[in-house]
Amino acid sequence: MRNIEVLFFDVLGTMVDWRGSITTEVGEFLKRHNLGHVDAAGFADAWVGRYDASVDPIRTGKRSFVLLDQVNRENLVASLEEFGLAPASFPSEELEYLNLSWHRLKAWPDLAEGLSRLKSHFIIAPLSDGHARLLVNVSKYNNLPWDFIIGADMSQAYKPMPQVYLRACEFLEVPPGHAMLVAAHDYDLEAARRCGLKTAYIARANAEDPSKAGNQKALDGWDYKAKDLLELADMLQ
Amino acid sequence: MRNIEVLFFDVLGTMVDWRGSITTEVGEFLKRHNLGHVDAAGFADAWVGRYDASVDPIRTGKRSFVLLDQVNRENLVASLEEFGLAPASFPSEELEYLNLSWHRLKAWPDLAEGLSRLKSHFIIAPLSDGHARLLVNVSKYNNLPWDFIIGADMSQAYKPMPQVYLRACEFLEVPPGHAMLVAAHDYDLEAARRCGLKTAYIARANAEDPSKAGNQKALDGWDYKAKDLLELADMLQ
Repeated sequence: MRNIEVLFFDVLGTMVDWRGSITTEVGEFLKRHNLGHVDAAGFADAWVGRYDASVDPIRTGKRSFVLLDQVNRENLVASLEEFGLAPASFPSEELEYLNLSWHRLKAWPDLAEGLSRLKSHFIIAPLSDGHARLLVNVSKYNNLPWDFIIGADMSQAYKPMPQVYLRACEFLEVPPGHAMLVAAHDYDLEAARRCGLKTAYIARANAEDPSKAGNQKALDGWDYKAKDLLELADMLQ
Repeated sequence: MRNIEVLFFDVLGTMVDWRGSITTEVGEFLKRHNLGHVDAAGFADAWVGRYDASVDPIRTGKRSFVLLDQVNRENLVASLEEFGLAPASFPSEELEYLNLSWHRLKAWPDLAEGLSRLKSHFIIAPLSDGHARLLVNVSKYNNLPWDFIIGADMSQAYKPMPQVYLRACEFLEVPPGHAMLVAAHDYDLEAARRCGLKTAYIARANAEDPSKAGNQKALDGWDYKAKDLLELADMLQ
């Protein structure tokens, strides 16, 4: 463990409360359009829940790489239709603003202090399905002190494709064994481990993919297991 | 000018005092090897001065892209030979440590405050011939609060190749007219302007390429001209 130079962090779920943040923005959107009776949390879960299945064709090579903004926009339209709301009945810029709620996801409360402590010992970088500009915007919005940002557009791949983890190590010129992924999702950690990275599991409420609710197992066998970044910083000190 | 979302910053010379920093480290290296009589500043200038000519074959496509670390290492060996010092007479790890002095370049004193002020209004990112890891190390060493880091390895190109500027805008999803390059070198600003970016000239002592000493013209016609980042922040407010 003394060899670890770089900590990569999953973002969606692990660093930011995506379900909570998107539920809030969906609620505001619905109210602005006199649709306060529509279930905002249900709509947010439907929208976020489409994410995994919709990037699968990219993972398997059936679709070329597109940015998460585009995936989200397609899923937003599908979710509106699922809830009986005609997408064309909303001004396009209103849908665009709602879609960009993924650039305004709120960080978990331990982030600022946790990252600052970890930054003094390691190079810290997000490693996400989000693209560079999305990560820059989320990071500015939450004042996150990253040393480097790696977006999915830089590897042109979605997790758990191995090139996500291997390209990230190449960018920072470290062998995979000198890097560790910090994440709240077993499938992500499993893929990183297969590429040779160390692994740290962070237990986050509300972090799992709504389409797989209840399947989050918190497997044993990760190199570290912590309730948040402060506990992880204690363990690594 | 109201459209500017992103400020890109040249690093070598504009953000950090490369000649001063390398002179200091060369001086320490020479002293450790009982070579205090060798002219450290002259050696540093010889080393830094080889940079431009040695990346030219990459700019013109005669050589494949290699990282600045490799260019610097080749130039270090050539400079030792120029000064009558046999490279093989030094332990390899000592030469490696000296070569990595490019990862420990010292920031000009206005950087921390200047960047912090600009960061509250713009996305700020270095745009350099240095590669990602070099920029991460220099930034950690000087505690620079970048929003995003773009290394030469991400465009696989050296300035003033147009893809340096255009790929940077693509990564941050801005049209070139919504970005501005901040630099102390006319050739860099000229190339950025040709790609459609706005330009800000920063006057830095000791920033010019030693192989072209005295040719620094500080041309007129840049969108902004300031003595440091604090003055630039005032102008942009």
